Amino acid sequence: MINLNPSDKALVPFVSVDHMMKLIQHIGLHDMLKGISSYVEADFKRWESFDKTPRVGSHTDDGVMELMPTSDGLDYGFKYVNCHPKNTEEGLQTVVAFGLLADVASGYPVLLTEMTLLTALRTAATSAVVAKLLAPKGARVMAMIGNGAQSEFQATAMQAIVGIDEVRLYDIDAAATAKCAANLQGTGMKIVACKTGQEAIEGAHIITTCTADKAYATILTDNMVGAGVHINAIGGDCPGKTELAEAILHRSEIFVEYPEQTRIEGEIQQLATDHPVTELWQVMTGQADGRTSEAQITLFDSVGFAIEDFSALRYVRDQIKATKLFHPLDLLADPEDPRDLFGMLQRAG
Amino acid sequence: MINLNPSDKALVPFVSVDHMMKLIQHIGLHDMLKGISSYVEADFKRWESFDKTPRVGSHTDDGVMELMPTSDGLDYGFKYVNCHPKNTEEGLQTVVAFGLLADVASGYPVLLTEMTLLTALRTAATSAVVAKLLAPKGARVMAMIGNGAQSEFQATAMQAIVGIDEVRLYDIDAAATAKCAANLQGTGMKIVACKTGQEAIEGAHIITTCTADKAYATILTDNMVGAGVHINAIGGDCPGKTELAEAILHRSEIFVEYPEQTRIEGEIQQLATDHPVTELWQVMTGQADGRTSEAQITLFDSVGFAIEDFSALRYVRDQIKATKLFHPLDLLADPEDPRDLFGMLQRAG
Repeated sequence: MINLNPSDKALVPFVSVDHMMKLIQHIGLHDMLKGISSYVEADFKRWESFDKTPRVGSHTDDGVMELMPTSDGLDYGFKYVNCHPKNTEEGLQTVVAFGLLADVASGYPVLLTEMTLLTALRTAATSAVVAKLLAPKGARVMAMIGNGAQSEFQATAMQAIVGIDEVRLYDIDAAATAKCAANLQGTGMKIVACKTGQEAIEGAHIITTCTADKAYATILTDNMVGAGVHINAIGGDCPGKTELAEAILHRSEIFVEYPEQTRIEGEIQQLATDHPVTELWQVMTGQADGRTSEAQITLFDSVGFAIEDFSALRYVRDQIKATKLFHPLDLLADPEDPRDLFGMLQRAG
Repeated sequence: MINLNPSDKALVPFVSVDHMMKLIQHIGLHDMLKGISSYVEADFKRWESFDKTPRVGSHTDDGVMELMPTSDGLDYGFKYVNCHPKNTEEGLQTVVAFGLLADVASGYPVLLTEMTLLTALRTAATSAVVAKLLAPKGARVMAMIGNGAQSEFQATAMQAIVGIDEVRLYDIDAAATAKCAANLQGTGMKIVACKTGQEAIEGAHIITTCTADKAYATILTDNMVGAGVHINAIGGDCPGKTELAEAILHRSEIFVEYPEQTRIEGEIQQLATDHPVTELWQVMTGQADGRTSEAQITLFDSVGFAIEDFSALRYVRDQIKATKLFHPLDLLADPEDPRDLFGMLQRAG
């Protein structure tokens, strides 16, 4: 698929799904999750240097298609991602994604990559970075409510980065739990399949909710959540899509990525628009408190922000250089004389 | 670059630069411009059925990177495009672009394509659709101010769709004019290279301005523009980037694509925010007047809107089916069980 005489700039490195899987195998899943988490952490610590905007969504009753751009002045990145909870009924993924990194000085793309797998990795890496920061000391047991496509990545990142060694699984669909349990065999973690959400959160220090209905759901009711836990709420990430009983929010210290986006999409869309929240980048830079007592409930109201994708894109760009796990894609018309696009077309004829 | 057992949905048709050039050659440039213009016209006529938003730009001193999404409820499309006027000094294009079409029902991408060439075509096709609507009857002569990468496409579309048979060229760089004149030899149009802008617009019924400086420039001064012309102002398309003297705007009937975007980016950023403008879709549907007198100056304050890219993407999707001018790109992870992304990764190892 290579043009006759394209310049280097015309060919954009493309990481296919096949290449992304090979990259993960090559680096190792634990090391890749740690690598992405270190990029996420570094980018959160320089939060103020980014050009930030809430993602741009096109919503229908069944789902949403979103663009998530950001820039640090040197690189520009964006992700296309959908969320269609009913897709699984048709044998399709709820979420598929791809992303781009471009050079800010010229606007030329420098990386195009699949991001369905990469989104699962960056979401898990971000959850783990935040749990390491906020979960009670010595957190060892995680409840995983919702055992879909993201669940094993969440558990593995918590193992690699936080040191979790027991995962308690629950899903309304027992087949999803069985799938998740089977996939996590051999990871060294104790895996406990549970029949109820209540059973799953017994003894858990971290509670991860990752369900997909586009609805105001109540995955966790108020009486289920005791003191001293960290809640990693992944699934509430659309207007009209939440997972937690409002009462839990009032008992929790709430931490968010980007308030302007989280107030629209996160669990806190249930609350007043001035309800106090803490920005994670401020905790990471020491400008705000994280967990201040053992009994506190900390809540990461995760919706996923463009900077996390940007971190993952940077990581992949830096890793593929040595591995050559990409194809040069003939994406950009690049005539010898930049003003002679028409002549290039004529001469090709 | 094909995965081992990806489903049909996992492979996204990709139109490379090479394939786009072959598609244009296969269809013929005039017919492709006419084809795209008919899609643009059809989409303008159903303007109200689109999900519309001003494009999302990330600006620096030297340029901008933009995302331009829209949806008609069945298809969702977006374009990534930059504009870096200084790129040509480095031998790079001012504008490069690529675009995506996705299925709204599932959010799955169905087409990925180069759009550097396609943007030149859709911009020219849109200019011609509008000129056909607004230019004085029997318009035959066009002045082309700015002879860069877009200029030959503009001239060719005006020939194919409006019936222009003489193009008068001017650029501050005589080499650009020479390049444009050489490329347009053999098209059947009379080509006149001019030494000044004033000379170029003598006798012109249509004046196209297409220059690229990111500045408040004055390509046309008030005294240059006489009665009864149509101005096709292409180059003013960024905050801080305009081409026309403000006085010309006050003498013109101004037509725009999407006021919310044009007021930020177009020539009318020089005017009060409530200065009257006419939306082109309303002229096309008969809800507003177009040209109402021979002496009137009509001005298309063109900035380029997402729906035009959507039209071009639809056109390419419909055309490549028969021609097979695309590659299946392994862009989307698609495990057999949609909830088993992790298992797919494990089994690939």
